[in-house]
Amino acid sequence: MSTWGEYFRVTTYGESHCRSVGCIVDGCPPGMELTEDDIQPQMTRRRPGQSALTTPRNEKDRVEIQSGTEFGVTLGTPIGMIVRNEDQRPKDYGNKTMDLFPRPSHADFTYLEKYGVKASSGGGRSSARETIGRVAAGAIAEKYLRLSHGVEIVAFVSSVGNEHLFPPTVEHPTPSTNPAFLDFIEKIDRNTVDSFVPTRCPSEDAAARMTKIIEHFRDNNDSIGGTVTCVIRNVPVGLGEPCFDKLEAKLAHAMLSIPATKGFEIGSGFGGCEVPGSTHNDPFIAAEVETKLGSTSSSAQRLVTKTNNSGGIQGGISNGASIYFRIAFKPPATIGQAQQTASYDFGDGVLEAKGRHDPCVVPRAVPIVEAMSALVVMDALMAQYARESARTLLPPLPKTIPTRPTTGTN
Amino acid sequence: MSTWGEYFRVTTYGESHCRSVGCIVDGCPPGMELTEDDIQPQMTRRRPGQSALTTPRNEKDRVEIQSGTEFGVTLGTPIGMIVRNEDQRPKDYGNKTMDLFPRPSHADFTYLEKYGVKASSGGGRSSARETIGRVAAGAIAEKYLRLSHGVEIVAFVSSVGNEHLFPPTVEHPTPSTNPAFLDFIEKIDRNTVDSFVPTRCPSEDAAARMTKIIEHFRDNNDSIGGTVTCVIRNVPVGLGEPCFDKLEAKLAHAMLSIPATKGFEIGSGFGGCEVPGSTHNDPFIAAEVETKLGSTSSSAQRLVTKTNNSGGIQGGISNGASIYFRIAFKPPATIGQAQQTASYDFGDGVLEAKGRHDPCVVPRAVPIVEAMSALVVMDALMAQYARESARTLLPPLPKTIPTRPTTGTN
Amino acid sequence: MSTWGEYFRVTTYGESHCRSVGCIVDGCPPGMELTEDDIQPQMTRRRPGQSALTTPRNEKDRVEIQSGTEFGVTLGTPIGMIVRNEDQRPKDYGNKTMDLFPRPSHADFTYLEKYGVKASSGGGRSSARETIGRVAAGAIAEKYLRLSHGVEIVAFVSSVGNEHLFPPTVEHPTPSTNPAFLDFIEKIDRNTVDSFVPTRCPSEDAAARMTKIIEHFRDNNDSIGGTVTCVIRNVPVGLGEPCFDKLEAKLAHAMLSIPATKGFEIGSGFGGCEVPGSTHNDPFIAAEVETKLGSTSSSAQRLVTKTNNSGGIQGGISNGASIYFRIAFKPPATIGQAQQTASYDFGDGVLEAKGRHDPCVVPRAVPIVEAMSALVVMDALMAQYARESARTLLPPLPKTIPTRPTTGTN
Amino acid sequence: MSTWGEYFRVTTYGESHCRSVGCIVDGCPPGMELTEDDIQPQMTRRRPGQSALTTPRNEKDRVEIQSGTEFGVTLGTPIGMIVRNEDQRPKDYGNKTMDLFPRPSHADFTYLEKYGVKASSGGGRSSARETIGRVAAGAIAEKYLRLSHGVEIVAFVSSVGNEHLFPPTVEHPTPSTNPAFLDFIEKIDRNTVDSFVPTRCPSEDAAARMTKIIEHFRDNNDSIGGTVTCVIRNVPVGLGEPCFDKLEAKLAHAMLSIPATKGFEIGSGFGGCEVPGSTHNDPFIAAEVETKLGSTSSSAQRLVTKTNNSGGIQGGISNGASIYFRIAFKPPATIGQAQQTASYDFGDGVLEAKGRHDPCVVPRAVPIVEAMSALVVMDALMAQYARESARTLLPPLPKTIPTRPTTGTN
Repeated sequence: MSTWGEYFRVTTYGESHCRSVGCIVDGCPPGMELTEDDIQPQMTRRRPGQSALTTPRNEKDRVEIQSGTEFGVTLGTPIGMIVRNEDQRPKDYGNKTMDLFPRPSHADFTYLEKYGVKASSGGGRSSARETIGRVAAGAIAEKYLRLSHGVEIVAFVSSVGNEHLFPPTVEHPTPSTNPAFLDFIEKIDRNTVDSFVPTRCPSEDAAARMTKIIEHFRDNNDSIGGTVTCVIRNVPVGLGEPCFDKLEAKLAHAMLSIPATKGFEIGSGFGGCEVPGSTHNDPFIAAEVETKLGSTSSSAQRLVTKTNNSGGIQGGISNGASIYFRIAFKPPATIGQAQQTASYDFGDGVLEAKGRHDPCVVPRAVPIVEAMSALVVMDALMAQYARESARTLLPPLPKTIPTRPTTGTN
Repeated sequence: MSTWGEYFRVTTYGESHCRSVGCIVDGCPPGMELTEDDIQPQMTRRRPGQSALTTPRNEKDRVEIQSGTEFGVTLGTPIGMIVRNEDQRPKDYGNKTMDLFPRPSHADFTYLEKYGVKASSGGGRSSARETIGRVAAGAIAEKYLRLSHGVEIVAFVSSVGNEHLFPPTVEHPTPSTNPAFLDFIEKIDRNTVDSFVPTRCPSEDAAARMTKIIEHFRDNNDSIGGTVTCVIRNVPVGLGEPCFDKLEAKLAHAMLSIPATKGFEIGSGFGGCEVPGSTHNDPFIAAEVETKLGSTSSSAQRLVTKTNNSGGIQGGISNGASIYFRIAFKPPATIGQAQQTASYDFGDGVLEAKGRHDPCVVPRAVPIVEAMSALVVMDALMAQYARESARTLLPPLPKTIPTRPTTGTN
Repeated sequence: MSTWGEYFRVTTYGESHCRSVGCIVDGCPPGMELTEDDIQPQMTRRRPGQSALTTPRNEKDRVEIQSGTEFGVTLGTPIGMIVRNEDQRPKDYGNKTMDLFPRPSHADFTYLEKYGVKASSGGGRSSARETIGRVAAGAIAEKYLRLSHGVEIVAFVSSVGNEHLFPPTVEHPTPSTNPAFLDFIEKIDRNTVDSFVPTRCPSEDAAARMTKIIEHFRDNNDSIGGTVTCVIRNVPVGLGEPCFDKLEAKLAHAMLSIPATKGFEIGSGFGGCEVPGSTHNDPFIAAEVETKLGSTSSSAQRLVTKTNNSGGIQGGISNGASIYFRIAFKPPATIGQAQQTASYDFGDGVLEAKGRHDPCVVPRAVPIVEAMSALVVMDALMAQYARESARTLLPPLPKTIPTRPTTGTN
Repeated sequence: MSTWGEYFRVTTYGESHCRSVGCIVDGCPPGMELTEDDIQPQMTRRRPGQSALTTPRNEKDRVEIQSGTEFGVTLGTPIGMIVRNEDQRPKDYGNKTMDLFPRPSHADFTYLEKYGVKASSGGGRSSARETIGRVAAGAIAEKYLRLSHGVEIVAFVSSVGNEHLFPPTVEHPTPSTNPAFLDFIEKIDRNTVDSFVPTRCPSEDAAARMTKIIEHFRDNNDSIGGTVTCVIRNVPVGLGEPCFDKLEAKLAHAMLSIPATKGFEIGSGFGGCEVPGSTHNDPFIAAEVETKLGSTSSSAQRLVTKTNNSGGIQGGISNGASIYFRIAFKPPATIGQAQQTASYDFGDGVLEAKGRHDPCVVPRAVPIVEAMSALVVMDALMAQYARESARTLLPPLPKTIPTRPTTGTN
């Protein structure tokens, strides 16, 4: 089903050649100021054609709020949003090579097998335009998280091909043990990331190395993958459900639902498998912590972890430290080179894509990763609001049971 | 919520020191022969204490079916299953170091913050005993998948620390481009894996290298992580929902919900980011394919992929090739070494775990990974059954629309 | 949440004064011919202003499919649908009596309390325009049910005020024991119902009596309620989930979610409480039954019930007999008479509605009842498809267990 | 699926002849004192055999909490509960009439058609024992509602056959316009209801009339139906979701999921169709209202309705007035009289039930109705907690938008 979330729920619709793409956001808190201006910036950031390195197509993705707000304020009712498609007509069949061949590593074949009907664009909802609804919904969630808790979400390109921003080393098989990396993710912001367009890798040196790689693959009519790292700061303690819906499990689900993704790792990740437990464990220290809650900020002593190999989540539940994770994107399947492959009717042939193609989609994935992050945290936050609000109305327990004081939502 | 799945739905309960742990499986197809004997083997495989390398505790996890079957046949009604806890009494508070300190990289701190009440075992549902219900439910799903489609699910240990079964090389930054690996995952079976207890890494050489590492960390009162690779063979084409519930996204969700996991990669994974698109794309070829459907097997020409960097999934939908993925497990948090950390009341102190502890949990994770795999595929299969059955009752379409013939469920 | 259904899932959006109202239908079977022409007739039937008896406003509710079809065929992907609002601007505040007083028995008060923000139309989503998305979605479900199983859904007005089509008598405290009623619901069709516009009560005599009542209340600036009876014919045996999601429970949920409803009864209903069990029980007889399944019809001997006090459902599961139920609609809350009531700031005052108002909404509810019926049956059908398809792939059971032969979906 | 609720979620299992019946309650607020003693009273109230009027079987339904509490306090984790079946063995097949005939108006036929496998008890989960899990879960919800908001839930028998506690009259076609009825439901309590065992109709006169009817049908080996009325007092304002999940729609769903129910009406109900809108509308008045919230009670002026034809819900959302509704139960299908009916293999025959049977189940339904009521309100309350908590953290809006002050959960 095309639905994400239980409390802050997004349902999307639309493929490449229909009238519009869009979504319905249900469960948005009422009483929040919201207009298209809050949403459009992320829509624009995900558009292709922002530099010579990416595809020159120029889509104009103007979002229109249909419902759920009045006088620029959310009503608490479902927010309908649509973005018109420029090219609204399905293509005719039978005229093109694409009608004869399922494109390798595209979704043409699996969609036909799954649905029994062939969409004119081949892979139907596997189109990148499907992500428009996610980004629109994510922008709303993100605004709420920022206003209520000062949550900050920043994604950036961390590798292209084998060029990394923080390459693994013998000393640091995972950047999670590298203080420079931990420092970096505490400070990086979205403007800095965007100043490194087209790569969105916020480092002069690494961006230059990545640009070279992308140009190399572009010039060879080939493509290359890469990774995006995302950090979520100021997440309240206590988000995430034990067992099946651990916070990292929902993040993994959300990220692997983005087209072209092949992997997800949180905190120390795969490299963390090579680190001794005695190093990997994050010991606690007491610290004075500033917390924003609604319109007020307060400071109090709290337990925090000295290191952050956990990536901000322990036992599936946020611990207040920055949550960070990395997502692998495969090389784009559409390449200019001729490809030997079989046709739908089992013939052998050669498929050659026309026009210019994006040699590396990783920079464009940045706002999509941020949007999905916002949706995951927002849903977990509202789940915890329900529980914590319920708890605060219960009578105090006898002193024999160890408890945390009832202090309202974390 | 402690629920997995929409069609084949598992709800689990229980922590370490309550009367029992267990689950309810709702949506199991009626008319399948099923007794405890179908479930117990995987329960036993996940038990600790199977070798000198793992912890010597010996739990007796006998599953008891409460409902949903009669005369050894499923009725289609919910299947209740319980496993009694040996130690049913919560521990007294206030007598132990553990009551003063949240254990580093355990869930003690986050559980207390989330729920406001401290379970006697610290992390409540984060206990490894929580996985018992999953394994029981997974065994039922697995039996159905085997009977109906000949699905085979095999997981094995693919690395411990920095010792790998298929180490990344310059030529093969991901094993997905290595024919030896692809051949290996087509042939590996569960008996072979178990013959390599205690490591469950099915290679003399690699198992020996891993054993050394585990012994080293055991002798140092330390711990080490590792990875598990899982392959699912004979999955029908067409499983997985586009957009948010892509098959790989559900697998990622399922795997990251297993305690102590830090990463997931499917097909080429993170290494695939370094492979050119021209290599990474999986071209189609026509092949004669044998398909088991219910009690019959048939052979027909079909499109299959020549390579399998996709890991058996394209556009979120299974393509008939073997699905394989890898999961990262962090080093266990409980270690014998003394750890400097803060107490609940912000004091500084030293925490030292008593007794023997598992230096590496990866071998025990094998049946849990298999169980979660079965639950994901089963749920996706039933979703597709609903859609495909509905489609087959529609009138044939005019020839102008490209369609797949109506052939019943894939 | 504004979502209905698990398998065939509808999510709606929109209130009275926003840009558009609409819905997303997810899970529609692929390969079905579908255009706006399949949907518009029911949209038009629910429009007000179809006669002198109902309100003279004339909305033009043209549905536009946004996605999910190509060349008039469903793709299996989400179907977005929108209907533009004529009056797209929220009203200014502070100028009208309605801004000072919560209207009695409207949702103004409860919406403000629930959301904390006042929609300009008062009750936000409680507007009758909210039902537009339901009717659009229901038309799609209904088309599928008709094509695949020959399902027929017909609703009609069965009472207005105390004038009934089948009034309760001492002999028949419920019409379910009345052969004339059972005969009537087997034959009634939508054209006949519509030929009795404006009352939609398909009986010369009863319609005349009802018209008099409605005119009486109209002339007194007052309003009156009534009931709608709905019959669903040719529902396959076996739909509905035991326990919480019994088919009648879902129907009750669906019907009570329609604005202004106060009651639901199925089969013998409330009157059935007065009938002895020996009369109420529906004995079985063997009969030759014609069944449409996809493009074919077949005839076979089957068990059917001789009477139908059950209303086509036993133990929460359809038994193949016609499903029929009745829904109570209260008198419309908006009346021309002056009403003494309190203002938001606790003052006492008089509220008087301007303009003409619908004295009885029951005739307009007919297509909405049909739409919700279709959504309930469609969802139950797909749930059963998933289970039944799964069952048919299992090996035959030993003869010692009583089973129904594996015959594909019922 | 055997699951109820999104926030406070109950999953049940078990049929008549398996090891146990039970449930898992997920989402219970942590930190509430809870032991079996809080649950057993309602379990005992639903047991048969409490008087000469009901069946003499005597089941001992002792509930055992398996998990989710420690030292008598909820942990916030899933609460597993089981009740052992006395008769744990499925019956042998082929020896009894019941194996040859599907019992009229039972679920034997529909279960066999749905699942394809025959449970030894015939209707599988349609057994009354299935309600045990509901009652256990409802008792937990009820305790929370009482502790946090002083919610009171009382159900009672309002009619048996055609004998009513408040019979419809020309003046009052619905009791909702009768001040005596409204006064009655404000005062009735559970002890008073139970003092009228076996009828549970709290009126000397009506109880006597009903007893006569029940005795009459018992003596004729026949059965008779009746209605239960339930009132829920002190429900906070603002519960219930607009559109599909209106509070009355969820109540209708919950009540029609109880075995043997045929109808539901809220507030004025079916009788309300005959009342003019000018009478039916509930005008507002300002009143001093006492509200319990957690451990404190406070008094404030608030808008309340002068009458209560709405039954405490407007636009699908609770308005603070008492919620009351009525449920129709059909006459029990098992009767001592011989019944002419068809066998599974289409033969004609006579079915005669052995032993004593319950001539009227309505009194036993009382605690089940209360349990389902508690589950509905609890789920709606937690949904509103999530929303309201989220809203309170947003910055104040400009004065130009009409809003309710941010006051924490209603």
